Amino acid sequence: MSSSPLLAELIEALRCLPGVGNKTAQRMAFHLLERDRPGAKRLADRLVQASERVGNCRRCRSFSEQDICPLCANATRDAHLLCVVESPVDQLAVEQATGYRGHYFVLLGRLSPLDGLGPKELGLDLLAARLGEGEVQELIIATNPTVEGEATAHMLGQLARAANVRATRLAHGVPLGGELEFIDRGTLAHAFGGRQNIT
Amino acid sequence: MSSSPLLAELIEALRCLPGVGNKTAQRMAFHLLERDRPGAKRLADRLVQASERVGNCRRCRSFSEQDICPLCANATRDAHLLCVVESPVDQLAVEQATGYRGHYFVLLGRLSPLDGLGPKELGLDLLAARLGEGEVQELIIATNPTVEGEATAHMLGQLARAANVRATRLAHGVPLGGELEFIDRGTLAHAFGGRQNIT
Repeated sequence: MSSSPLLAELIEALRCLPGVGNKTAQRMAFHLLERDRPGAKRLADRLVQASERVGNCRRCRSFSEQDICPLCANATRDAHLLCVVESPVDQLAVEQATGYRGHYFVLLGRLSPLDGLGPKELGLDLLAARLGEGEVQELIIATNPTVEGEATAHMLGQLARAANVRATRLAHGVPLGGELEFIDRGTLAHAFGGRQNIT
Repeated sequence: MSSSPLLAELIEALRCLPGVGNKTAQRMAFHLLERDRPGAKRLADRLVQASERVGNCRRCRSFSEQDICPLCANATRDAHLLCVVESPVDQLAVEQATGYRGHYFVLLGRLSPLDGLGPKELGLDLLAARLGEGEVQELIIATNPTVEGEATAHMLGQLARAANVRATRLAHGVPLGGELEFIDRGTLAHAFGGRQNIT
């Protein structure tokens, strides 16, 4: 837009958001300038605050502005259970969807040597030390069912075995509301092989 | 997300963007914090700059940080043509899609008495004064083909007639790549009624 360089810069900057291309960025910029300047300023303020002050919890590596996040510090949660997820988004999904009341460990990635993500970057030394403390009785491996996620899960399983901790993996199968006709073959094979008795 | 109040605030603030609900805001916030903190700060800076400094051009009412926008100040554009659009987004669309080299006038809305948008809010006095200057020879009415847009177009047509200026309206018809089968009846009727000779 030739009539305002600042507007063009704002549109360009909005494209750093995931899933936002040129058209969407334009629409967002015009919307903010036409109808919601207070919202734009509040958003700017929150962006600065969050990107400067949100760090990672020293214990679970999830996002937190404190040294130890409230969830790790919460004494009412079950310290015998530890759920390992790839990212804070996955942690949020588990927290919102299930009644899980144990603790979490966030890898902040998955095993991917080509991207320079090895055991050290995933904090596996921290996890091994945690398992070594002896309090955790079950390690729930909730990495994504992708090739890299499966490789990560395999390594986590080895870690658990070395520490003599029981390791479990989320069940694979037919998603609720899915139709057999449209489910990919791998999932269907998993669901078939893992069939359960109706009691 | 209980583990970080700042993160929760950021997610909330992102929802001021059009088309961004809770899930998308979460994904955006996590993406920025995990992978693009410099981008987040740049975006914050641009938001503040744009929302504080971008105003409206005194002549065409489009967004500009100057008193008169570069487009209005551009002496190489044809001052005989004036295209009236509802918003700066529409102006941008016309500018990018067509070879139009005249000037613009931006209503910043459409006639909508229930929302408190009357002739005064749309700057029609400014437009009347502009037409009265005698330089404009054609008023191209490019309001949206909605009920309110049509009412606005009708009023703009009266304004042009009063100033003895020729008024034109964008052609209605079958969009390129559209199929007759799927086009709404109103558009098809317009396209049929406005059929043209093949020369």
